[in-house]
Amino acid sequence: MTPLDSGEFGLIRRIQEMLDAMPPSVVLGPGDDTAVFRPEPGRDLLLTTDAMAEGVHFDRSFMPLSSVGWKSLAANLSDIAAMGGRPLYAVVSLGIPAGWTSADAEALVAGMKRCGDAYGCTIVGGDISAVGSEAFIAVALTGDVARGRAVKRGGAAAGDLICVTGTLGGSRTGLEVLRSGVNREEYGASIGTFLEPVPRTGEAASLIAMNNVSAMIDISDGLSSEIHHICGSSGTGCRIRSRDVPVSPEAARWARERGAAALEYALGSGEEYELLFTVRGQQAVTPPPETRVAVIGEILPADQGIRILVDDEERPLVASGWDHFRQ
Amino acid sequence: MTPLDSGEFGLIRRIQEMLDAMPPSVVLGPGDDTAVFRPEPGRDLLLTTDAMAEGVHFDRSFMPLSSVGWKSLAANLSDIAAMGGRPLYAVVSLGIPAGWTSADAEALVAGMKRCGDAYGCTIVGGDISAVGSEAFIAVALTGDVARGRAVKRGGAAAGDLICVTGTLGGSRTGLEVLRSGVNREEYGASIGTFLEPVPRTGEAASLIAMNNVSAMIDISDGLSSEIHHICGSSGTGCRIRSRDVPVSPEAARWARERGAAALEYALGSGEEYELLFTVRGQQAVTPPPETRVAVIGEILPADQGIRILVDDEERPLVASGWDHFRQ
Repeated sequence: MTPLDSGEFGLIRRIQEMLDAMPPSVVLGPGDDTAVFRPEPGRDLLLTTDAMAEGVHFDRSFMPLSSVGWKSLAANLSDIAAMGGRPLYAVVSLGIPAGWTSADAEALVAGMKRCGDAYGCTIVGGDISAVGSEAFIAVALTGDVARGRAVKRGGAAAGDLICVTGTLGGSRTGLEVLRSGVNREEYGASIGTFLEPVPRTGEAASLIAMNNVSAMIDISDGLSSEIHHICGSSGTGCRIRSRDVPVSPEAARWARERGAAALEYALGSGEEYELLFTVRGQQAVTPPPETRVAVIGEILPADQGIRILVDDEERPLVASGWDHFRQ
Repeated sequence: MTPLDSGEFGLIRRIQEMLDAMPPSVVLGPGDDTAVFRPEPGRDLLLTTDAMAEGVHFDRSFMPLSSVGWKSLAANLSDIAAMGGRPLYAVVSLGIPAGWTSADAEALVAGMKRCGDAYGCTIVGGDISAVGSEAFIAVALTGDVARGRAVKRGGAAAGDLICVTGTLGGSRTGLEVLRSGVNREEYGASIGTFLEPVPRTGEAASLIAMNNVSAMIDISDGLSSEIHHICGSSGTGCRIRSRDVPVSPEAARWARERGAAALEYALGSGEEYELLFTVRGQQAVTPPPETRVAVIGEILPADQGIRILVDDEERPLVASGWDHFRQ
């Protein structure tokens, strides 16, 4: 059955049925003019939005719609994590082309719900539009954080250590492997990172508990681009040490096979959704054991510029990340 | 200069510059991973989203992008009004085709900001994506309402009066006039309603103060469709009196010229953004003087069905409103 067969309201009704009973803090879930929720006293609220467009952010020939749904919510969860926040409630605007079936739309929502369930976020409402040919999925997500404790991009100062969670380069590797059609088994982790990235909401909570995180951003456009955002907002420079940048093993292997530099994958791979953050002072970085954190450099005064140390040679670090309008 | 010339970050920076300084309740506006705001104690929060897609909700050949921006926010403001709420903060996901210029994107945002300024809503963040060919604008809007006082669709009961603000039929008339290319002067109000509809946020606040509004919805899909939503959610029937439905004078004239029934315009015109609401008991409806309200029928027990009285003859009221998937 296509969306056209059942009409907009039929599809909306079936999607509403897919969404679970709401938590007690949700006064009113899907099905009215707006959702209604009761904020917890003493906390600031976070609000963000991020969209995925067919042909730009995803290609149905190698990306299941369930993964598109997952990733569209994960990108927003990552933004909440980057503020040190706790995710709360999402609303979703879907633009559905005439060629889609109801099952397509439901697979997308199922993936979104799977991601929400995994990270404690509830889909409380949405809107469906017909579109001409290219689908879009726009998610808006709220979260909260202890009053005054949101971690901004602009809080870094000279002397802070620069850290990153996880390993980098996997998302671009996964995309390139999927596009190339080569044997995929040995790049399973990278494909997973590209299709269904893990938002670092739990890690963010652990990092915030250290009480010395001075600035944070998630890696959606690539490490080199994000470090420019932190330094630009903070009015600082920095030095990254390339040898300490945690390249994913699969990205290193993929780069080697192609005769490319693994470092470029780690610096330029977007949609990683790892956290890039700075830690005040030269205190030891002691993340919880389950969180892999690498110290990759330090914040410097602005006049030192934004630089990277490669093989004992220091050079400017160019923002090489993902810019949709330049691809 | 095209968005491509300046890159995604250049366009984002210029859009950020267009947005004013934030009100004190906004801890952090555009430019970080999320916006941060401080909710007012004792209030419930509202969250909604609504999108406009090129070729479906707007056609650039007769709709200026500034009006597209206005309307994309107005549709969301109308949802907040329909809950009896006060609008607060919006985030916007823009999908911009390669053919647009930076000036196009800025005109869109300018119209959105003009609407936000008019109705007390602040744009606190957003996201820009490249898309293939058809633009989309997805807005998510928060609002608030006194704790437990959100007005739902499902609160109507037999005996309640059914009321509507303003006049109906203008939006469809405006769209048809614009499409037809006829002399537009005499249909100026309708064109205005279609291009830049007025969200009834102020009227909603006045109506709520009457303390006897039992259910409310905004007319985005057409009166006949919305009354089905109210009765369906409330578990009731109703009787609408066609002679009391307030048809806009321009819609009546346009229908007459075309040999169509003016009532059909009033019942089926979507994107009107007037408020349809029910009032408890047979108390007099005493809206504030600046709010035009018509009493158009009454809520009945469910077994009476959803009916309309036309020329002393009662018949079922068919939901004839806008369904994008069926157009």
